[in-house]
Amino acid sequence: MAVNLTPPDPKSLLPVAGVDLGFAYAGIRKVKRNDLMLIRLAQGSRVAGVFTQNAFAAAPVQVCRQHLAASETFRALVVNAGNANCGTGEAGLLAARQTCDAVARELGCRAAEVLPFSTGVILEHLPVERIEAALPACVSTLAPAHWAEAAAAIMTTDTVPKAASRSLALGGVRLTVTGMAKGVGMLQPNMATMLAFVGTDASISGALLQRMVREVADASFNRVTVDGDTSTNDSFVLIATGVAAGPEVVAPQDAGYAALKEAVTQVAVELAQAIARDGEGATKFITIRVNGAKNAEEAVRVAKAVAHSPLVKTAFFASDPNLGRLIMAIGNAGIAGLDTSRIDLYLGDVKVIERGGRAADYREEDGTRAMKPAEIAVRIELGRGDASTTVWTCDLSYDYVKINAEYRT
Amino acid sequence: MAVNLTPPDPKSLLPVAGVDLGFAYAGIRKVKRNDLMLIRLAQGSRVAGVFTQNAFAAAPVQVCRQHLAASETFRALVVNAGNANCGTGEAGLLAARQTCDAVARELGCRAAEVLPFSTGVILEHLPVERIEAALPACVSTLAPAHWAEAAAAIMTTDTVPKAASRSLALGGVRLTVTGMAKGVGMLQPNMATMLAFVGTDASISGALLQRMVREVADASFNRVTVDGDTSTNDSFVLIATGVAAGPEVVAPQDAGYAALKEAVTQVAVELAQAIARDGEGATKFITIRVNGAKNAEEAVRVAKAVAHSPLVKTAFFASDPNLGRLIMAIGNAGIAGLDTSRIDLYLGDVKVIERGGRAADYREEDGTRAMKPAEIAVRIELGRGDASTTVWTCDLSYDYVKINAEYRT
Repeated sequence: MAVNLTPPDPKSLLPVAGVDLGFAYAGIRKVKRNDLMLIRLAQGSRVAGVFTQNAFAAAPVQVCRQHLAASETFRALVVNAGNANCGTGEAGLLAARQTCDAVARELGCRAAEVLPFSTGVILEHLPVERIEAALPACVSTLAPAHWAEAAAAIMTTDTVPKAASRSLALGGVRLTVTGMAKGVGMLQPNMATMLAFVGTDASISGALLQRMVREVADASFNRVTVDGDTSTNDSFVLIATGVAAGPEVVAPQDAGYAALKEAVTQVAVELAQAIARDGEGATKFITIRVNGAKNAEEAVRVAKAVAHSPLVKTAFFASDPNLGRLIMAIGNAGIAGLDTSRIDLYLGDVKVIERGGRAADYREEDGTRAMKPAEIAVRIELGRGDASTTVWTCDLSYDYVKINAEYRT
Repeated sequence: MAVNLTPPDPKSLLPVAGVDLGFAYAGIRKVKRNDLMLIRLAQGSRVAGVFTQNAFAAAPVQVCRQHLAASETFRALVVNAGNANCGTGEAGLLAARQTCDAVARELGCRAAEVLPFSTGVILEHLPVERIEAALPACVSTLAPAHWAEAAAAIMTTDTVPKAASRSLALGGVRLTVTGMAKGVGMLQPNMATMLAFVGTDASISGALLQRMVREVADASFNRVTVDGDTSTNDSFVLIATGVAAGPEVVAPQDAGYAALKEAVTQVAVELAQAIARDGEGATKFITIRVNGAKNAEEAVRVAKAVAHSPLVKTAFFASDPNLGRLIMAIGNAGIAGLDTSRIDLYLGDVKVIERGGRAADYREEDGTRAMKPAEIAVRIELGRGDASTTVWTCDLSYDYVKINAEYRT
């Protein structure tokens, strides 16, 4: 029951020159649904990524970091669902490397040019032989038009595949940005989200691509939270094949950098919002805007304190304008010297908190009306400075408990 | 459905010389159940407290801090349930002071010798006139034997009143420590819990009493969490009437300090555990022990990262040995340089994680057996140092959502 989120129309997903996508069922997950996805990249493609900050970073995350440090360009990304290959020690690292070896053999490239990704149950051995066996079938489906099928193949408890496209013109050249993501729980990405892959046919230097992936992550995936838990496998990867005509973007002052970053950010924000809309058990999509913070870090802390509070989230589920829980959560953000008497708070267009107390002309029926819609905007004015942020989240429903109590059974 | 928690046998609650307790229905909460509680103290009683660190500290918390700073000894504590008197601005401070004035008139003492406490809904005006009207009835019930009734009068969503006693002999003098607490949600006390009052007839200097209340809070209420939300009204107050014979404890090296602190800690830990056992919707009582940390702060961070994770809590609710969620939560504690390959983890007596991976001889049926009981001990060995801690929590069930979705309706 994702909130205002439907599967992307495959026709709306623009192929990216130099990116082919394939999919197959390898039998890693129990239900018979595609669980293997392969992205083949044109020669010379650059890739940059940001990864989980969880101390138990999964084996594929560790191998990705090594390969990204060792190679300049990349030929493939391989993703399995159903098994996270995390907490699996040396055997897990070996399984991730074997996966890369198998892809390299199939595609005729070096293993270090392959990046591996896994998502699913933690602490279980990855049956790499099933991936090897399914790879030929996966390769046989490689095609530029397969973004929707690829997005479906990486889902775990997601109910809706998540993909989005933008195009832009740069110096007379038409460029495309298309991306996909998965993730609905264990989700407070820190530097990156569960798994997200965004590709463009633009040409951009490796250093600038790395800069862009960080900046975009901070403006998109790092601002969404479902349950405050950060996964062990979070990865957000930005691919630039450079296949489109046009000059390489080499400096942040280049006109192309801002334009390309804007398109990538739009795709990433749409994917990040899709993650919150499809949050486990979600019945409401909540946008939390914080204004008037001293700095961005403070704004994020206040927004996340509200977004993480189970009491705030259950109040949204109940459509209950329980204002006390909102101020409780703001008060818990740990902001030194916070003057609560300067704080205003709006639910939609209704001012509910004024100077730290109940707004003078607030009426309960207005609050109730503001809590009813499936999409709710919370705006918090701290009155301390000029910094702002926006965080997206969802409510906490019976179904969150149900989904997570029954996940492995 | 509290976990292995029944109402205290009134006969097990030892009266504390110099402490009388009264109760009444003032009509602050809608259901007709006692919602006003008064503690009268013998002349010369000392009181020390620790209070919420939420920036939206409630009006009674602010008045308590002022009165504690202004007076050496205290004559009364007054508590209402059903309304937190928080986010109520100047009017709220006035209401808290009016409550103290009314008690002072009834008992013939100064208002600064009265400490006010409130718990319940946030951001609603406290109808102080109802407290004033009910005070005479409340005073008429004042008696040393009324700990159980007093504990019942301060409950909100608690399902079981929480009180405990210990006695000790010090230099041939028999001393008593009896306490009560309330609180089952919005509960990750930070310096103190929702509301807890512990009294003793021992004689102890004001400075040492303040030291003791902090030390005991750190070892008891600060180590329990239900949902990670810190209330605006948290208060833990330690009362020493000095009515028992025996010398005043004036130095931490006094034999009496350690013995008295041990008895107060035992009462506080029993109350803190009762809070987790009665956690909103709780079906499991979870004890999380962390050993081998570099320091106590690190041990608490790891234990609370596990105790707060909604994914870990729903796995406990489902009796599902979902080991991956446990390592995910440990990895999210934000411990710099954490070497995951040194971490072992036990569920009860079953070693499930060994050197950061699944234990070699772990069998799923052993994990399933370990997750079944209503009381589960989790032990985490970090292998980094000598510091340890213990944190108590409960699981996250459908009923947590139900209780909090319906709280105000």
